[in-house]
Amino acid sequence: MTDAATSPFDDIRRLITTMPGPDEAAVEAVRLRERQLTKPAGSLGRLEWLVEWLAAWQGKAPPTVDRPLVCVFAGSHGVTAKGVSAYPSDVNRQMLENFAAGGAAINQICASLGLGFKVFDLALDMPTNDITEREAMDERSCVATMAFGMEAIAGGTDLLAIGEMGIGNTTVAAAIYAALYGGPAEHWVGRGTGVDDEGFRRKVAAVEAAIARHREHLNDPLETLSRLGGREVAAMAGAILAARLQKIPVVLDGYVATAAAAILHAIHPSTIDHCVAGHLSAEGAHQDVLARLGKIPLLALGMRLGEGSGAALAVGLIKSAAAIHRDMATFAQAGVSERLA
Amino acid sequence: MTDAATSPFDDIRRLITTMPGPDEAAVEAVRLRERQLTKPAGSLGRLEWLVEWLAAWQGKAPPTVDRPLVCVFAGSHGVTAKGVSAYPSDVNRQMLENFAAGGAAINQICASLGLGFKVFDLALDMPTNDITEREAMDERSCVATMAFGMEAIAGGTDLLAIGEMGIGNTTVAAAIYAALYGGPAEHWVGRGTGVDDEGFRRKVAAVEAAIARHREHLNDPLETLSRLGGREVAAMAGAILAARLQKIPVVLDGYVATAAAAILHAIHPSTIDHCVAGHLSAEGAHQDVLARLGKIPLLALGMRLGEGSGAALAVGLIKSAAAIHRDMATFAQAGVSERLA
Repeated sequence: MTDAATSPFDDIRRLITTMPGPDEAAVEAVRLRERQLTKPAGSLGRLEWLVEWLAAWQGKAPPTVDRPLVCVFAGSHGVTAKGVSAYPSDVNRQMLENFAAGGAAINQICASLGLGFKVFDLALDMPTNDITEREAMDERSCVATMAFGMEAIAGGTDLLAIGEMGIGNTTVAAAIYAALYGGPAEHWVGRGTGVDDEGFRRKVAAVEAAIARHREHLNDPLETLSRLGGREVAAMAGAILAARLQKIPVVLDGYVATAAAAILHAIHPSTIDHCVAGHLSAEGAHQDVLARLGKIPLLALGMRLGEGSGAALAVGLIKSAAAIHRDMATFAQAGVSERLA
Repeated sequence: MTDAATSPFDDIRRLITTMPGPDEAAVEAVRLRERQLTKPAGSLGRLEWLVEWLAAWQGKAPPTVDRPLVCVFAGSHGVTAKGVSAYPSDVNRQMLENFAAGGAAINQICASLGLGFKVFDLALDMPTNDITEREAMDERSCVATMAFGMEAIAGGTDLLAIGEMGIGNTTVAAAIYAALYGGPAEHWVGRGTGVDDEGFRRKVAAVEAAIARHREHLNDPLETLSRLGGREVAAMAGAILAARLQKIPVVLDGYVATAAAAILHAIHPSTIDHCVAGHLSAEGAHQDVLARLGKIPLLALGMRLGEGSGAALAVGLIKSAAAIHRDMATFAQAGVSERLA
């Protein structure tokens, strides 16, 4: 039994109560400038909203996207023993090497858009426990992994995209959503990297077994995180929190990355106000999750790769939005007539 | 009366019958490589489709996005005399100067994404006729403007985004759609740069008057183009045709640019197979138009600026898609295990 007064999670809970809100003055400054730019008011739609959002959470106007960074957290999952993925777990380390060698999809996206890229190995050679049998990790390990995620993003980025890689982690994400939101496992489970019908049934069975195994311990979102894992989800949750404290807006990648945001949202919805959804994943229930989080995805391209790929493409849009706001001429500068009275 | 046997449009009609189809061998080569890249099959969704589409119309594998170009065509419209815009027509020339000075939104998008940018002045100081009273231009002038658009894109681009600028041109586009597809003017008219309720009613009245004025001459899409205008729509139609002949895929911008594609589509649907819709405009009926053209927009960000802005952002995505396909490692190169049998 955990004594709530001395839970390893207490520091995290305390941190969440001290998080800064949006900088309304910066938002107002953005709006003031926006009205003077040589275009009809509102004609850039969500791009204008994105600039306000950047300003709100960076606490400055104009906001910048000078050092965007994609952070990918890689984890290894004991539940793969239940045959939940079309790929062997060896792929985790092979893909880490592929990232390092510049051969993965995310490397090309970052190169084409001028984004920084970092990958973090979360003890890949030591998988979390099989969540159908026991807790993924203990609470201290969960907090330590969150702390690792918090430190990982340090170094001066002004816009953070978070993503993940880990064979078996769409099963873990589905279990987290089932724990947070209820409903049948089938609703939350998707095809992941592309399992066949048999594999899909094994994923559903694994989620059902995990929920049944931990049922009495899923009321607290942080306990849900430590019981269902995985390490990359814990690290992303830490990264999201640290970003808020360091005034770095966050772009979420797809189905698995959103699970980290969902844990924080379940603690308090405002905890993820500094996050946007980079894209809508093709993975089954992502749309439902985003609706519950109140997030409208920036892109919907049928992607389901992970690696931060959807978030990184969205950063490209946000970079353009910031450049428009910063560098456009005003009506006065350009000698362009404002609208008719 | 025009003698069909000697219509100035005959050359255009002949050109359309000689247009090349997709290069199936290039598409097959893309698919072959795609299956070997270190990611689950299909996991990049529409990005994978975009690479096949590029290859089909560039006629090469891998396709390239090395010299993307945004072309903006600017026109001036007599129908502005009917009070259809929130801005005075003086803005046309002022915005042309703003483009040249690098102060417009499209300049910042092109700079942030590394896109080439050209603007074409289509006799801005000589507005087309007021379409509620007479034809926008005569057929020879329409063909000459299409020819201008065909020549404008020469110079070695491998991906073309087309956009426009012209006070009053959402009224012209609405009239074209009403002519092509029927239905009440209210369905096709939107707020454009942001007219108020009075302005909206004037736009609807202008579209109704234009359709009534030219009703007996709207069966042929090219005659519809010359009667309803404007010059930028004719030039964009020419640019789309020339791009097809020169193996340059095209990214369409929003409500007005799509009108050029709609004219060509009405002549024969396959005429715009080499075009994708860059984005869904916030302008009322754009979604309906895209559905009629069978185009699913790449972006939906509530934009309604024109200037090629939505198309240019979409080019950023396509550039990343091409980079992924060209530069990713294969399973064999990276030593990554393929899926379990």
